[in-house]
Amino acid sequence: MDDPEYRAGIIELLGALGLGELAAFQRLSADSELAPTLADQAALAGMAVVEFHHFERIRDRLAELDVSVDDAMAPFHDAYAAFHANTAPSTWLEGLVKAYVGDQIATDFYREISVAVDEDTRLLVTSVLEDSGQADFIVEHVRRAISDDPSVAGRLALWGRRLVGEALSQAQRVAADRDALATIIVSGAGGPGMDLAELSRVFTRLTENHARRMSTLGLSA
Amino acid sequence: MDDPEYRAGIIELLGALGLGELAAFQRLSADSELAPTLADQAALAGMAVVEFHHFERIRDRLAELDVSVDDAMAPFHDAYAAFHANTAPSTWLEGLVKAYVGDQIATDFYREISVAVDEDTRLLVTSVLEDSGQADFIVEHVRRAISDDPSVAGRLALWGRRLVGEALSQAQRVAADRDALATIIVSGAGGPGMDLAELSRVFTRLTENHARRMSTLGLSA
Repeated sequence: MDDPEYRAGIIELLGALGLGELAAFQRLSADSELAPTLADQAALAGMAVVEFHHFERIRDRLAELDVSVDDAMAPFHDAYAAFHANTAPSTWLEGLVKAYVGDQIATDFYREISVAVDEDTRLLVTSVLEDSGQADFIVEHVRRAISDDPSVAGRLALWGRRLVGEALSQAQRVAADRDALATIIVSGAGGPGMDLAELSRVFTRLTENHARRMSTLGLSA
Repeated sequence: MDDPEYRAGIIELLGALGLGELAAFQRLSADSELAPTLADQAALAGMAVVEFHHFERIRDRLAELDVSVDDAMAPFHDAYAAFHANTAPSTWLEGLVKAYVGDQIATDFYREISVAVDEDTRLLVTSVLEDSGQADFIVEHVRRAISDDPSVAGRLALWGRRLVGEALSQAQRVAADRDALATIIVSGAGGPGMDLAELSRVFTRLTENHARRMSTLGLSA
C-alpha cells in the first residue's frame, strides 16, 4: 500500500466491486417485485440484502484507506448502469437467471483477479463473494419452471447469452478505462501479477464456468 | 393464542406489519436511486435493509404460528400498493421525507395498537419498530436542504400532508376490511383492548406526533 500506483489499483478494484454490490442490491430489490408470491419476493429481497452487507464491508475498507465511497465507486457507475439498463428482466424467471448468472460471473471474475493482489485484499474480496445459498434456491425454481413448461428454456437460454455478452463487454470497457486497475491485474505491483496469456485463460475459464452453470439451470449456453 | 378469533387477529396484525416492512424495503431501495451521491444512495439502502431484517423477524414468528407469509400478508397487499403508488417520490428530498414520515406514522400506529395485545406479541412489535438512527440522518439532510434553498419548504410541507392523508386513508381501509384485526384492537380478546374513545384519542395522537415531526424537519404540518 506504500506504492501509490498499487494503492490506486486496489482502490479501483474495491470501487468496482463495491459499486457492483450496491447496484446488485438495487436491481435485486427491484426485481423482487416481479415474483409471483410474497415468499418469493422476500427470497429475492434477502439476496439483495446479502449484497448490501457485502457492500458495507467494502465501504468499511475504503474508510480505513481514507477514501470516500463516491471517489472510489463513481468511476464505475456508467458501466454498471449500462449493464443493468441493457439487461432489465421482464419476468420473474429472467430476474432469477440474471441474479444467478450475473452474480456468479462477477464472483468468478473478482476471484480470478484476487490472485494478483495482496493477502488482506484477497481475503476481503473472497469474503464478500461468498455464496449465501441463493444459488440453490434459483436453480430449483428455474429447473421446476422448465419442467412445468419446457418452452421457456429457449427464451431463457437466449437471455443467458445476452447476460454474459453484456457482462464481458462492460468488463472490457472498465479494463480499457481504468489504467491503475489493469496495471495491478497484469503487472501485479505488490502482488504476484498475471501475464497476458494468463489473462486470456481467465476469460476462457469465465466462459466455461458460465456454460457449466447454464447447464445446471437446464439451459444450453 | 388458544382463542381462534384472537389468534386470527394477531396473524392479521403480524401480516399487516410484515408486509409494511417488506413494502418499505422495496420502496426505500427504489428511492435510494434518487440520491445525489453514492454515499447517500447507500444510506437509504441501509434503511431499506433495516426494514428487511424487521420483516424477517415477523416471518419467523409467522412460521412459529404455522402460517405462510403469503396467507398472512397478501390481504394487505392492495392497501400498501395503493399507498406507495399514490406517494411515489419524484425527488430525493421527497423520498427522505417519505421515509421519515411514513416510517414514524407506522411506528406510532403499531405501537399504539400493541397495547391491546399479549406481551410476547407486543415485545415483537416494539422490537421491529425500533429506530435505527435513520431519523437523524434524514432530519439533518432535510433541514440543510431547506437552509440552502428555503423555497423547497412549501413543496415539502404539501408533500408531508399528502403522505399523512394517504397513510390514514389506507389505515382506515384496512381497519374496515379486516374484522379480526379490528376486533382485537377494540375488544382486546386476550389482551386489555381499547374502547372507541381511546381509539379516537390514538388518531389524535398520531396527527399531533406527525405535526411535531414536520416541525422537526423545519416544515409546517
